[in-house]
Amino acid sequence: MSKVKVGIINVTGYAGVELARLLAQHLEVELTSVTGRSAAGKRLGEVFPHLSSLELVIEAELSEVDLAFSAMPHQESAKEVIPLLNQGIKVVDISADFRLKEAAEYPRWYNFPHPAPQLLKQAVYGLPELYRTQVASAKLVANPGCYPTGAILALAPVVKESLIEPEIIIDSKSGASGAGRTISLQTHYSEANEDAAAYALAGHRHLPEITQELNLLQPGQSLSVTFVPHLIPMTRGILTTCYAPLVSGKVAAGKKGEEELRQLYLNFYRDEPFVKIVGFPPHTKHTWGSNLCLIHPTIDHRTGRLIVISCLDNLVKGAAGQAIQNMNLMLGLPETTGLEALAIYP
Amino acid sequence: MSKVKVGIINVTGYAGVELARLLAQHLEVELTSVTGRSAAGKRLGEVFPHLSSLELVIEAELSEVDLAFSAMPHQESAKEVIPLLNQGIKVVDISADFRLKEAAEYPRWYNFPHPAPQLLKQAVYGLPELYRTQVASAKLVANPGCYPTGAILALAPVVKESLIEPEIIIDSKSGASGAGRTISLQTHYSEANEDAAAYALAGHRHLPEITQELNLLQPGQSLSVTFVPHLIPMTRGILTTCYAPLVSGKVAAGKKGEEELRQLYLNFYRDEPFVKIVGFPPHTKHTWGSNLCLIHPTIDHRTGRLIVISCLDNLVKGAAGQAIQNMNLMLGLPETTGLEALAIYP
Amino acid sequence: MSKVKVGIINVTGYAGVELARLLAQHLEVELTSVTGRSAAGKRLGEVFPHLSSLELVIEAELSEVDLAFSAMPHQESAKEVIPLLNQGIKVVDISADFRLKEAAEYPRWYNFPHPAPQLLKQAVYGLPELYRTQVASAKLVANPGCYPTGAILALAPVVKESLIEPEIIIDSKSGASGAGRTISLQTHYSEANEDAAAYALAGHRHLPEITQELNLLQPGQSLSVTFVPHLIPMTRGILTTCYAPLVSGKVAAGKKGEEELRQLYLNFYRDEPFVKIVGFPPHTKHTWGSNLCLIHPTIDHRTGRLIVISCLDNLVKGAAGQAIQNMNLMLGLPETTGLEALAIYP
Amino acid sequence: MSKVKVGIINVTGYAGVELARLLAQHLEVELTSVTGRSAAGKRLGEVFPHLSSLELVIEAELSEVDLAFSAMPHQESAKEVIPLLNQGIKVVDISADFRLKEAAEYPRWYNFPHPAPQLLKQAVYGLPELYRTQVASAKLVANPGCYPTGAILALAPVVKESLIEPEIIIDSKSGASGAGRTISLQTHYSEANEDAAAYALAGHRHLPEITQELNLLQPGQSLSVTFVPHLIPMTRGILTTCYAPLVSGKVAAGKKGEEELRQLYLNFYRDEPFVKIVGFPPHTKHTWGSNLCLIHPTIDHRTGRLIVISCLDNLVKGAAGQAIQNMNLMLGLPETTGLEALAIYP
Repeated sequence: MSKVKVGIINVTGYAGVELARLLAQHLEVELTSVTGRSAAGKRLGEVFPHLSSLELVIEAELSEVDLAFSAMPHQESAKEVIPLLNQGIKVVDISADFRLKEAAEYPRWYNFPHPAPQLLKQAVYGLPELYRTQVASAKLVANPGCYPTGAILALAPVVKESLIEPEIIIDSKSGASGAGRTISLQTHYSEANEDAAAYALAGHRHLPEITQELNLLQPGQSLSVTFVPHLIPMTRGILTTCYAPLVSGKVAAGKKGEEELRQLYLNFYRDEPFVKIVGFPPHTKHTWGSNLCLIHPTIDHRTGRLIVISCLDNLVKGAAGQAIQNMNLMLGLPETTGLEALAIYP
Repeated sequence: MSKVKVGIINVTGYAGVELARLLAQHLEVELTSVTGRSAAGKRLGEVFPHLSSLELVIEAELSEVDLAFSAMPHQESAKEVIPLLNQGIKVVDISADFRLKEAAEYPRWYNFPHPAPQLLKQAVYGLPELYRTQVASAKLVANPGCYPTGAILALAPVVKESLIEPEIIIDSKSGASGAGRTISLQTHYSEANEDAAAYALAGHRHLPEITQELNLLQPGQSLSVTFVPHLIPMTRGILTTCYAPLVSGKVAAGKKGEEELRQLYLNFYRDEPFVKIVGFPPHTKHTWGSNLCLIHPTIDHRTGRLIVISCLDNLVKGAAGQAIQNMNLMLGLPETTGLEALAIYP
Repeated sequence: MSKVKVGIINVTGYAGVELARLLAQHLEVELTSVTGRSAAGKRLGEVFPHLSSLELVIEAELSEVDLAFSAMPHQESAKEVIPLLNQGIKVVDISADFRLKEAAEYPRWYNFPHPAPQLLKQAVYGLPELYRTQVASAKLVANPGCYPTGAILALAPVVKESLIEPEIIIDSKSGASGAGRTISLQTHYSEANEDAAAYALAGHRHLPEITQELNLLQPGQSLSVTFVPHLIPMTRGILTTCYAPLVSGKVAAGKKGEEELRQLYLNFYRDEPFVKIVGFPPHTKHTWGSNLCLIHPTIDHRTGRLIVISCLDNLVKGAAGQAIQNMNLMLGLPETTGLEALAIYP
Repeated sequence: MSKVKVGIINVTGYAGVELARLLAQHLEVELTSVTGRSAAGKRLGEVFPHLSSLELVIEAELSEVDLAFSAMPHQESAKEVIPLLNQGIKVVDISADFRLKEAAEYPRWYNFPHPAPQLLKQAVYGLPELYRTQVASAKLVANPGCYPTGAILALAPVVKESLIEPEIIIDSKSGASGAGRTISLQTHYSEANEDAAAYALAGHRHLPEITQELNLLQPGQSLSVTFVPHLIPMTRGILTTCYAPLVSGKVAAGKKGEEELRQLYLNFYRDEPFVKIVGFPPHTKHTWGSNLCLIHPTIDHRTGRLIVISCLDNLVKGAAGQAIQNMNLMLGLPETTGLEALAIYP
């Protein structure tokens, strides 16, 4: 039986190259076409030596595939994706172009008018833990951002259960690969090494995505979310620390409350292959190269606040791994196929 | 004229060794005695090659000095400090042993009964920006912790002016040198590199210090402070992001409010040589090796929250540099003596 | 059909834990027993969260297995291995205890008399590229050291073909995980970060292993090898730069000589799954987490010297991956089983 | 008495910015003018926050100064320097434009014909340890490259005394700041972090500089030098390991020979303020931010080879610090003025 053919549009960014790595080890699909603008015509292994065994040549245009991943930048991605959908090709879009439900958000946050607002309703937000069924039948999946994946998974159970007041602080620390492969002074080695700083204080583009999804979990509520991302000196990994006041009286005092909270999370993510509730502050290193999201919910008893910490590898569960998880669902494959690799430690 | 003689108790930790480095370049005092337990008898330059030009031998006991720095661990430090005070020697204690005003806090946070509660009132909390006059006439200065220095300086102006509701979140990111020179698995290179994690979620020892000092700034108020420290893969630097709701109506909306806030901070720290208010998210790298604390106050207009970010070098303004700043005040020297070095970048 | 049962003695070091990670993904064998002294009784996932899916408990003694890996320190390892061999259990020993053919070398380099000199002849040096057939029928395989793997693979073709004079310089740069999981000041994060230094100038223990194997390739010759290892600030990876004068007249001048050299290497490693000859200076990052050794042979035309650079992941091809490669051969499995993972980049 | 006015051409690279930092702390000269092309018109502190206390504005053209540093790239630098010399302004050129004595080397190594060959004889190679007197009376000093500084200082004593055969291997490991502030994929954080690789195998531009200077030390001899630089993941620091056969019979066997060698180096650098002979393999960290070069000469007794290891901070002794050392000599100031800072550790 011939394998399903898949392709990657713009393989030359970090999300694209990570997709290629993971798909190379996927036994049920075959990566048959990869594109890239400046590198078109080169062997993939010439640009990315670790992928030389794939024996692919970077093309200018995608060849015939059954499913395509778009790893184009936002605004560019929609232009590539729309014609593919019209040809009946399923798409997992790693860009932000179909994540927001309201077309009006695009000019506000991404500085472009959305070219196909009708598709925004049709697109499924590709967080399998919340939208598994919808992803399975989707033609177009909008793969979540790296920060939103960690933040939404951390907060979904308590938002859904109305355990917290709507005053939420999300403080994220990200490695540099989240900023992509495009060179910049901010990610120049000598600038980023031995340095930590916040950025995007006026509003990061992942904020509307986080609020949209959290608000959908508890329609009556309107959450007040502050999100501050930080760049820290490592290559992979996002650590997200979330703070919110617990609604008074809903969770027991002391250790008992912590245990109730833990049970809530364990139940919420009971059958999830890629979410693990842990009893200690999680380390990004424990997710390095894997598709796991680790979550540690706890309580600051002095103040009655919830603290939930999550971490993940921004290029795997935060991008390429989650895209393959979505692909597996869309193709009716076991969800974990090709994503079984354990984290590499140390 | 003979210089003032100063000594360092326990020179072999990172705070001690950084004191030695800075004192070596101080023109008004002379470092004449350094102690260390296991290394006693060795030349300082043998243990720390970068200090070999000092030509000092590590002693078991402090020789006669006019002022002593104690860089002993907590509980041990008080034992060393008390006899020195009785001999009339001025002391800057880098440990936590005299930072908390209430003796009852010591068993709770540090697991030992305080040996000299009467000294807690007499000791001056060595944050010159808040206690300059008191430090100048103090016999015993309790040098602040690294996290508290960054957090208190970030929040003091708005707490003092009652601009924020008492619901404060402090999220700090620290390099590994804050954990000291004592080896541990947590700070083993292969474990700490390419890793980020929170720690001390049950309550870090710097929390009571932060709340004590912030509460003293606004006696009527009782602040509800959550403090979560994180270890990130760099050697030096603490980045602290503080969040609190602005009191409604006290600050103008929009850019005007940001400017008012900025003016408040500029005024509060008007003549401070080591606090700089900056108009962008500060980078720890811009304080590397210097005694500066950079502070960036801003407003999350969507939620009406204050965000203040501070950063400093945990071994300089967070420890040894601040100790020398205190010493300068105690000796009637210009406050910046020996602390003029600019940050080393990149 | 039941799978072959394998066990790991001393799973708690970095080689042990990496073996567990790789074996967890090996479809033909089952990891059924892991031991560790101080951690005995704990769940493996408690000590190493990334391995929690293995559902193993660390034991004090190895349970019944068909093949065992010993990841004990040298001298300790032999004590564990000898009884297993007597029980007919095949062993891959990751320590140095059976690598050197001459028992007299052990007191000299490792400070202990060898407890079973007769086994030294029987043990096969587990570098499959040189000893594939012998490994396949071995009861005891001495898994090579991390430095020797990179150095021997880099130099074997030219030594074998007598293309170089016997004056060899080997300059290696290693990440910190090569020093193991045991904490030390040298590998304390704040000491090792932003630092580079040579070590073991009086003679590193991997030197006799390198000379033994290179001399065996060209029995008439006696090589004069200088080997200097350096510690550099990264977790994984060894980069080895080898220098030797080319024998006059054996290789053509100019680009033609480089191409001849390249062909020699391509031929020598023609069917090797884990050695790749590359046309540019290889990056350790391109081997991260994989079992590959990349080799770049070239010529310094100004001086007539050969330069060969190799790199590998010290915990995979330099330890656990190579051990599994050896196990595959010993069990008659395809050599690449469980070792197919591509390097993780970036 | 008014201070000597100095200026920096192209302050915006890492050498330029490091010059500014060091000059800010120099008590005998005043930095009055800094230039930069793209940043002209901006305050220096706007581009480099750690320099904001300097209160300088970046200019398009250098204002009147008594001495200028050129931190322009090669080929551009000569264009700036020549007119200054014609105006009688002393110059320390940090570029390579006046380092090589033979004009013919410039097209070969730097791809441009030298615009002023007559100046090459007049320019003094600014390694004070070899050319102190000449520097003191020079109008134009060619500041050495970062790699040559470490390599020449490591080898000068034994080349001068003809203790080694002319077969020299120089293996250098450099942090990323040596590649400058211009962004590139090679120094993109995610590419350079956790990576090590050699580069410039076809011949690095610092090679002719190294051979020129070593050959000048022993005119009869013609050295055969192989130089391979490596990029390792740290910001500052160069570690250089040099290998050469000892001339038979000139140095005693065993420990005695090591001690003779050590004495030779101690004598050679007896009164040097910035060269320190150490009895152990030096750590780049011990020179971080300082103008020191640490050198450790030793013998590989098994092979009769000399091994000399040196290290320095590439931006200080390898660039800006050495430039100031040269300036001090040219201005008749004590050589160490402004360069007294100890290394920052850890």
